Amino acid sequence: MTCIAFQIVPDIALTERLFDELGAKTGDSSGITRDSYGMGEQFAHDLVRMEAEKIGMECHTDAACNLYMVMRGRGDGPAIMIGSHLDSVPSGGNFDGAAGVLAGLAVASGFHRAGQRPPVDLVVTAIRAEESTWFGASYIGSRAAFGTLTDEELDGVCRSDTGIPLGAAIEQAGGDPNALRRGDRALDPARVALFVETHIEQGPVLIDERLPVGLVTGIRGSFRHRHAACFGEYAHSGATPRKTRRDAVRATAELVSILDELWARLETEGHDLSVTFGQVNTVAEEAAFSKVAGRVDFALDIRSECDTTLDMMRAELRRVVAQIELRTGTNFDLGDETGSDPARMNKAILAQMEQLADALAIPARRMASGAGHDAAVFARQGIPTAMLFIRNRNGSHNPDESMDIDDFAQAARLLCALCESWSGPPEPD
Amino acid sequence: MTCIAFQIVPDIALTERLFDELGAKTGDSSGITRDSYGMGEQFAHDLVRMEAEKIGMECHTDAACNLYMVMRGRGDGPAIMIGSHLDSVPSGGNFDGAAGVLAGLAVASGFHRAGQRPPVDLVVTAIRAEESTWFGASYIGSRAAFGTLTDEELDGVCRSDTGIPLGAAIEQAGGDPNALRRGDRALDPARVALFVETHIEQGPVLIDERLPVGLVTGIRGSFRHRHAACFGEYAHSGATPRKTRRDAVRATAELVSILDELWARLETEGHDLSVTFGQVNTVAEEAAFSKVAGRVDFALDIRSECDTTLDMMRAELRRVVAQIELRTGTNFDLGDETGSDPARMNKAILAQMEQLADALAIPARRMASGAGHDAAVFARQGIPTAMLFIRNRNGSHNPDESMDIDDFAQAARLLCALCESWSGPPEPD
Repeated sequence: MTCIAFQIVPDIALTERLFDELGAKTGDSSGITRDSYGMGEQFAHDLVRMEAEKIGMECHTDAACNLYMVMRGRGDGPAIMIGSHLDSVPSGGNFDGAAGVLAGLAVASGFHRAGQRPPVDLVVTAIRAEESTWFGASYIGSRAAFGTLTDEELDGVCRSDTGIPLGAAIEQAGGDPNALRRGDRALDPARVALFVETHIEQGPVLIDERLPVGLVTGIRGSFRHRHAACFGEYAHSGATPRKTRRDAVRATAELVSILDELWARLETEGHDLSVTFGQVNTVAEEAAFSKVAGRVDFALDIRSECDTTLDMMRAELRRVVAQIELRTGTNFDLGDETGSDPARMNKAILAQMEQLADALAIPARRMASGAGHDAAVFARQGIPTAMLFIRNRNGSHNPDESMDIDDFAQAARLLCALCESWSGPPEPD
Repeated sequence: MTCIAFQIVPDIALTERLFDELGAKTGDSSGITRDSYGMGEQFAHDLVRMEAEKIGMECHTDAACNLYMVMRGRGDGPAIMIGSHLDSVPSGGNFDGAAGVLAGLAVASGFHRAGQRPPVDLVVTAIRAEESTWFGASYIGSRAAFGTLTDEELDGVCRSDTGIPLGAAIEQAGGDPNALRRGDRALDPARVALFVETHIEQGPVLIDERLPVGLVTGIRGSFRHRHAACFGEYAHSGATPRKTRRDAVRATAELVSILDELWARLETEGHDLSVTFGQVNTVAEEAAFSKVAGRVDFALDIRSECDTTLDMMRAELRRVVAQIELRTGTNFDLGDETGSDPARMNKAILAQMEQLADALAIPARRMASGAGHDAAVFARQGIPTAMLFIRNRNGSHNPDESMDIDDFAQAARLLCALCESWSGPPEPD
């Protein structure tokens, strides 16, 4: 393994101090709460802006209050953006989102302390309102930056606890909902050479494989049936023969088992996939221990980073359901389908990061992101986009998120090397 | 098929009138309600007693207010008892229970109208409080008749709606809870040659097979885990690989599917069995469509008329659960086991009824009773016991119970023939 000496060293001491400050000021014994367009998120934005200004970065916000902290580069080519969001779920953890913004500051401070400027403008970006818990809409800040937030969302989507409409909350935070209504774009994709989001891994893969860093190949898209149901017929448990039962529990269990087997098979064939029945419920007022169940409500979440795999699963789901209906005398109503398209990360950047990780002796692996991220919004705008995962214990969205600062430092080293060795925008995929 | 002429013809007109009267006076648009030890049940007891007295039957009640309507027989051998209960569930149907008492009256009135006496005393019996909905205890009346109701039940079991303790309710209805506390027995098993309970079928077997009458081979016993749970680990649905999941929904679905396959196999091997998961629920406050489920609560009800089949299923359940735990990384807690022992119907009487059905050209088949009945209490006292099922649509315990009076008449003909051809107690099984 070849180790190349890079000059820019990330400022980990700065980020340790900022993580501590964020934890102390936006957390209590129940966890971290940085409410979107609320006091918690605002505190975090103010904190990072102050630090950025200390190292000479030019800071400005857009109509949705996204924060851009710019370190001027030597050249005037399209900028490198490094960022993520600063809001959190209620009683969440300190690292989901914040790690990606602080990683950008660590890089910028690294350039500053080395007395160097980045090759092009380095824009450390703190995006607003990524978490959908507060306003029931995803990626509000990043979509707003590209002018794609709708009037319906600005007026109709209200904060789950206070009831304030999104547009009013943006205005209260100092934003300009009228500009958003006009569809003004704060970001011109042609002026962004790269968007990199660094994020704690929300699953256990890096923990299990003892790797500090993951190189994200794509962000999984999904299709979901959040309100699906299987309808059978209530009947006496002791008096109804197996053959005449129309048992909604049995039928739903078959669906779970068959899709699980299908997942196992497709995985061995190389498909990226996840299949989850997160909620399964008989009807409280109707079901009884001594009755064959006449109805089961369930939620199904299928994800893949590949469109064709999702399409195949969509067709398989319908085929399997029809078979089970025939065999069990039940009827499924899958209800509405929601979901999102997969987002591919830029292949050239991915290859470059892999080479850099190798050169820096940072153990890493390629992996899909199972959760959605602002990076997907950037990728869908045609911007070359990359994501780094940092090893993290206990998942995210809970107070037990556990990221080791040494692992964060490895990711930040990789970002520094990427910026230092920057030679211009990659080929489009 | 040989048709033998019997002289005693059941009084179907009487029973039609009584069914109508019961329906009119204990029902409304939401169904039939004859509350145990309440006004509804009392009305039914008063009604049948009045009719029995009209045809010269001697009526008396015991300490639990069970009603015995006696038509004196020619001989003084042990009596034939025909009966069932008169209470119903709230908003239930008109036939569950009542059909068995009215069938006895139809027979008695048949003897009366023919100017004949039965070979031995014929005791038409209206048992109290069979339904467990009201007092949360089963077979109160029949168990009380044999002195086996406990002090704990008399004092501690209260009516679910009014809160009145069982003992007080019995006293209000004119009974003698102190006699019950002493364990006084109203019935001496040695003086009962036969107990026959006629009941609407609570499943669809006779409907499906187009048979008016079923000859019950035994009353299924059961073992139940009413509060079982599978524990896994909550995790991100998109970010947690299949292999590291500990998915409680997947594990529970496997249990449902494997036990269903086992049931299918054992049934082809001749075992009597039913397996029901009537309630299956993820935890409302914890589960989400985008989370692998960390817990599933479920209820399991396994029934068979054969003790050894129940024992085998008990062992299989443990074996299958252990396998699934290993495979899925989950843990099952089956919780307490409750249940009841199977009760065999008398084989000689069953054979006799089968011959009589054949002689009377009544299409009938042998079948297990999946639900519990007072007959099980009599059988466990060593009394030769039989049950007849009457074809019924839509199950029981609901306003849509639908028994055709012609089918009822077939069962009553069979009962008349059984009494008329009575030659004394059968061999003990």
